[in-house]
This record gives sequence, structure tokens and C-alpha cells, in this order.
Amino acid sequence: MWFPIIVSFSMSAISYLVTERTIPKVKDMFLKASLFGMDLNKHKKDKVPEAIGVVSGCIFLIFLFLFIPVPFGRYIVETSNFPHDEFVEMVAALLSICCMLLLGFADDVLDLRWRHKLLLPTIASLPLLMVYYVNFNSTTVIIPKPLRPWVGFSVNLGILYYVYMGMLAVFCTNAINILAGINGLEVGQSIVIAFSIAIFNFFELSGELWKAHQFSLYFILPYLGTSLALLKYNWYPSRVFVGDTFCYFSGMTFAMVGILGHFSKTMLLFFIPQVINFLYSVPQLFHMVPCPRHRIPRYSPKTDKLEISLSTFKRTDLNWLGSTILKIFSTFKLVHLKEYVGENKEYMECNNLTLINFVLLWRGPTHEKKLSQILLFIQVICSVLAFTIRYPLASLFYNV
Amino acid sequence: MWFPIIVSFSMSAISYLVTERTIPKVKDMFLKASLFGMDLNKHKKDKVPEAIGVVSGCIFLIFLFLFIPVPFGRYIVETSNFPHDEFVEMVAALLSICCMLLLGFADDVLDLRWRHKLLLPTIASLPLLMVYYVNFNSTTVIIPKPLRPWVGFSVNLGILYYVYMGMLAVFCTNAINILAGINGLEVGQSIVIAFSIAIFNFFELSGELWKAHQFSLYFILPYLGTSLALLKYNWYPSRVFVGDTFCYFSGMTFAMVGILGHFSKTMLLFFIPQVINFLYSVPQLFHMVPCPRHRIPRYSPKTDKLEISLSTFKRTDLNWLGSTILKIFSTFKLVHLKEYVGENKEYMECNNLTLINFVLLWRGPTHEKKLSQILLFIQVICSVLAFTIRYPLASLFYNV
Repeated sequence: MWFPIIVSFSMSAISYLVTERTIPKVKDMFLKASLFGMDLNKHKKDKVPEAIGVVSGCIFLIFLFLFIPVPFGRYIVETSNFPHDEFVEMVAALLSICCMLLLGFADDVLDLRWRHKLLLPTIASLPLLMVYYVNFNSTTVIIPKPLRPWVGFSVNLGILYYVYMGMLAVFCTNAINILAGINGLEVGQSIVIAFSIAIFNFFELSGELWKAHQFSLYFILPYLGTSLALLKYNWYPSRVFVGDTFCYFSGMTFAMVGILGHFSKTMLLFFIPQVINFLYSVPQLFHMVPCPRHRIPRYSPKTDKLEISLSTFKRTDLNWLGSTILKIFSTFKLVHLKEYVGENKEYMECNNLTLINFVLLWRGPTHEKKLSQILLFIQVICSVLAFTIRYPLASLFYNV
Repeated sequence: MWFPIIVSFSMSAISYLVTERTIPKVKDMFLKASLFGMDLNKHKKDKVPEAIGVVSGCIFLIFLFLFIPVPFGRYIVETSNFPHDEFVEMVAALLSICCMLLLGFADDVLDLRWRHKLLLPTIASLPLLMVYYVNFNSTTVIIPKPLRPWVGFSVNLGILYYVYMGMLAVFCTNAINILAGINGLEVGQSIVIAFSIAIFNFFELSGELWKAHQFSLYFILPYLGTSLALLKYNWYPSRVFVGDTFCYFSGMTFAMVGILGHFSKTMLLFFIPQVINFLYSVPQLFHMVPCPRHRIPRYSPKTDKLEISLSTFKRTDLNWLGSTILKIFSTFKLVHLKEYVGENKEYMECNNLTLINFVLLWRGPTHEKKLSQILLFIQVICSVLAFTIRYPLASLFYNV
């Protein structure tokens, strides 16, 4: 059991070093290809290479290609009993990730539309679902104790379970993508999630389903290796941006280990801040409240700090649903809301509904680095909470 | 046997229509992303979107993702005897192709170096080789009759066979890439090769190894569908360029069906023009003769025709090996060679060593469209030759 994990760990350490050395070498290529962005939250607005996630992603893929034979080492000489079912899981997992890297990079280069961002992860997860169908096809969900008198011990969700898994990939990729905009946050949160998954996997190695968790570690360890190297360059002040490529690639990796490792619900527990950010964003994402193109915080050059960014719109542009939501949010002090702005008092303003702005709302203007640290700290706290829910509480609800 | 092929054929027809409709819609995205080239062989030098091969490639992938369940239809209800070994072939094939698409697109965007062009296909073919090892691991080659007295009936090449297969992927991707430079040629030649493979597969469906050829058709048919739509836009005068993406993607598809379909030698027979072009190019590719950055023919705006392009260099820059080769080539009238050029007669000139220039050498200035037609005609003739070698002649050499 431990041998392939140790090999994976060592290779992941090497993948860190390779990524660390590769990124500075390829930076100029990205600038030359006009793949760069301006860092809006800085005094000096330099060109920062964009979509560098494709570099860490490709190195991740290469290391996993080289790693494939390791778990199957003892079948090298005698291939007659070869576990094709485990092998196909590995290959399908890589296919989904590779596909997502391709689509993410295409998105960074070509600026795809929103509907593609929902469609593409669904397509990329098809091979995974097929493998799941063939290898497990367990679509039964165990019901928590308090609900059992009504729905029974377990429910077979059938095809709905596949819809859920397909949506998982869409959710994971986009959830990371919308909690973004300040240096180091995308990679930072992904690393916290990956660490949480790795710790969970290590706990569960002693359990019945140890194989599934071993499988998950094969992917999470090199993911951590390559992403930590990426964070080094993406941390404040960013010398590279990671791009949608990274969010797509990360989201798919997490969804994939959750699906094939049979712990998708636990995996979602590590996404609490992303879920909160998503729910908080819903009024803007679904255009109940007007949504500007960018929702990142506003940079104040005088103080070198970030402030909440505001969305200003005509009061008449807001329908009853949007105004009700904003009023409820305002009652609970969840938004900054000013109703009569402008010369003729016809405008209103509220902060853009992101977790980042929410933190700024409570803390006041904050330096970018500090803000990133706070948000990552929240992510860590939520992971601790997730473990509390998963272990002590779950046994209350699920123990037979 | 026929049901999945008919489904595949129908889906390929649809994939043609989808590709045909998608390309005009996405053209502007590519221009905006500054992914374009100038057509050097035209009066008017417009911006032509580049790397459109990624569009046909992605549509190809999506259709194959949707097709995966079809060949395994009868296992849908009862998955206990599921043929994981066949399934993993399919998934690994898609992984290699997807990987190649990613790398090809990265090359088009970022302009990778030569060593990457050799390294990347090798890496992308690793999953294929692994599947080959697990599923077949037959590394024995049957020896042609005339040689049998010396080497015996067959030879086990062992690891060398894997090296050969890895190099096949490198060769196929680059061979198409260097026979390029005029409108429609990359896609045209690839389509002729794909058609030849499809015809060969149909012939062999009645043979013992029909499963392997059925498998090959699953990939070649949608490849033809998407590439024919691409040709429509890439044909003279090109409204899109296909980019390295397309060459990588095509080469990998061919190498993959050759490897997993067990007909890599026959597959190579369809590459005769590419092999000739490669051999003719060797003196320039390996810098025995100075090699300019571009070797495409020279456009004459006066006649609207293409002429041979010349490489001019100091006579002292040529070492004995280069000069010997050029002299031999010149004796057989295979090159245009002028030894004393320039004011002080210190320069010499020869045509760039490509099959395209070779055709121009024999025919004189030719219109681009005509030239493309001639080269594709050569490709067709060579495929007929290949079938002659494969069928009547091979039975002479191999029949026991």
C-alpha cells in the first residue's frame, strides 16, 4: 500500500522543483504571445504573464504519465491478471484533466462565452461518468438518521446521481473561478482544499475503502507539488497570473478524485467558502441585481489598500426580486447599500457581492497581501469545520 | 460488427456539419486573440486566423466522448463481463489525442522550441505504449521470406519495438508538419492518408483482426468528418490556417490507430510522400546545408504563380558533407544548384529541399491551387502504390 504513495510523494517533490524552474524560463514566451494581464491592484501597472496554470498543469500531466506504471508494478512481468478496471480509472481521470487543461487554455487565449464554461466541464466529465458506471454504478445514497422514518435507510438516485456528478465538475471549476481577483487567492484556496483532501485520504487509508483514497493521493500529491511552485510566483506581488486554465484544471482534479474516490460529499465540505461566495453572488450572477464586468475590489493608490468595489445603477433598473434580496441582505448587514445617490437621487449603490468584498465590508480597507491571508485563513477554518462535520457529527447522523 | 460503424459514420456526418458551422463563428475570436498569420502567397495580404485545427480537434473529441458508450452497448445492462481491456484502449487513445491537441495549441500560441516538438509527442504516446504493453505486448516481427535463411522466421524486438512505436508518433506528427506551406496541403494530405487507412480498415473487416480495424474506424471516420469541413475553409484561397495543432492532432491519430490497430507498418506505407519529403529535407534539417527559417516557395506577384525558393549562402559555409550531398543531388538533377553567384563568385545557391520545391523544379512556376492539387495527386498515387505493396507484393514476401 505504501510503496506507490512514497514514489508518488517523491515524484511530487521533483515536480515542485521542475515547475519552480520552468515558470521563469517560459514567462517571456507568454508575454510574446500577448498572453498577459495588468495587475489592477498595484501602483505600477506592469505586464504580468497570464494563464501560467497551463505550465503547472502540463508538468502535472507529464509526471502522472510517468507515474502510471508504478501502481501496477507487480503486473509488469505477468500481465494475465492485470487489473484493467483500475487502470482505466487512472487513464480516464487523466483524460478528463487533460481535456480541462485544453479547454481552460483555449478559454484564456480565446475568451470563450459563459455557456461554454458550463458546457465544457460537463463534456470533459463524460469519460469519468462512464468509468463510474462501468466500475461501480452505485447510485444509492444513505439517508441521515433523522430523515429515515420518512425516506427509509437509503435511496437509489439512479440517473440523478450521474447528473449530480456531472454538475459537480461544473460547480468545482467555476466555484474557484469566481472566488478570485487578488494575488495568490486562486492557487492558495486550491492548495488548502488539496491539503484537506490529502489529510482526509491519509486518515481513510486505514479504512475499508483504502484503495480509493490511495488512488486519490496519486493525483493530489503531484497537484500539490506543482501548485505550490505556482503559488511561489503567484503570491503577492504576483509575477505570474494563473488564468482560467488553473481554475478549470484544479476544479476537475477535485471533482474527479471526489467521484472516483467515492467521497464527493466530503469533498464538497472542503468547498464551504466557495459555496458561501457562490450563494452570496447569486443575485449578481443571475442578474437579479445589475452585475458589472469585473467585481474585484477597488485599489486606492493613496493608501495602497483595497476597498470594497461598488456597483451603481438606476433604482428603476432593479426589479422587485433584486430589491427584496438587497433589503434582506441589508437588514442583516450583509451588504453596503445606499439607496439615494446622485444629483437626482435616482441611483443606488451596493457593494459587489463577493466574499472578498464582504471581508472588506467588515474589516475596512485592507492591504492586498493581508486580505489574501485572511481569505486563506477562512478557508483553513472551514476545512477544520469540515473535518468536524465529517467525523464526530457524521457518526451521530449515520451510525447504524 | 456493423452497428457501431454505422453509428460512427452517422455521427461523423454530423461532426462535419457542426465543424462547418462552428469555424466561421469562431474566426473572430482567433483574430482578437492575435492568433493569425499572413498568407505570403497572395497579392492581398490579409489576416488569416491561425490554429483553427483546435476547433476541428475539439469537435472530434466531443463526438468521440459521446460515441464511447456505443461499442459497449450490450454491456449497458449487465456490466459484469465488461471488456475493460477494450475500453481502456479507447480511453487511452483519446488521452493521447487530447494531450497532443493541448500541446499543439500551446505550440501555436507560444511558439515552442524544436526540442519540445520531439519530446512532446513521445510523452503523449506513453499511455498508448502502456496499453499496448498490457493488452498485447507482442513485440515479435515476422521476417520477409528472402531474409529468413539469415534471421529466421521471426525476431522478437522487445523494448526496441516500443522505441519504434514511440518514434512513430514523433515521425507522424512532424512529417505532416514539414510538408506544408501552401493552402490546403496539410489538411489535404491528411485526408488522403485517413481515406487510405479507412479503405484498408474496411478491407480488413472481413479478416481475423476485424476488431482492431473496427476500432481504427471509430477514430478515422470522425477524423474525416471534421477534417473535410476544415479543408473547405483551408482550401485555396485559405480563409483559415490549420496550425501546428492540426498536424500534431492528425499525426497522433494516425500513429495511434497504427499502434493499437496493429498495422503500423501498413500505416507507414501511406506516408510515402512524407518519407520522401523528409529524406529530401534531411541535409537542411540536420544543417549539413544552410537552412533558412522558412522554406515555402516564392510568390511572384507578377504572374500570381509560385516559384522555387532559393537558399543562398557563402560557399565557405558549406562543409564537405553538404557539398558532396548537393553534388550527388545535382548529378541526378534533384536540385537546382548554382555554384558561383554574386559579385565575387563567393556565394552559391540551391533550392530549398522540400517536395514542394522539387515539384516546382520539374514543372516550372505553378499556380498555388494547381500545385496543391498536384501534390495531393502524388499522395493519392502513392496510396495506390501502398495498396499494391501491401496486398499483391506482401503475399509474395510473407506467405508461408
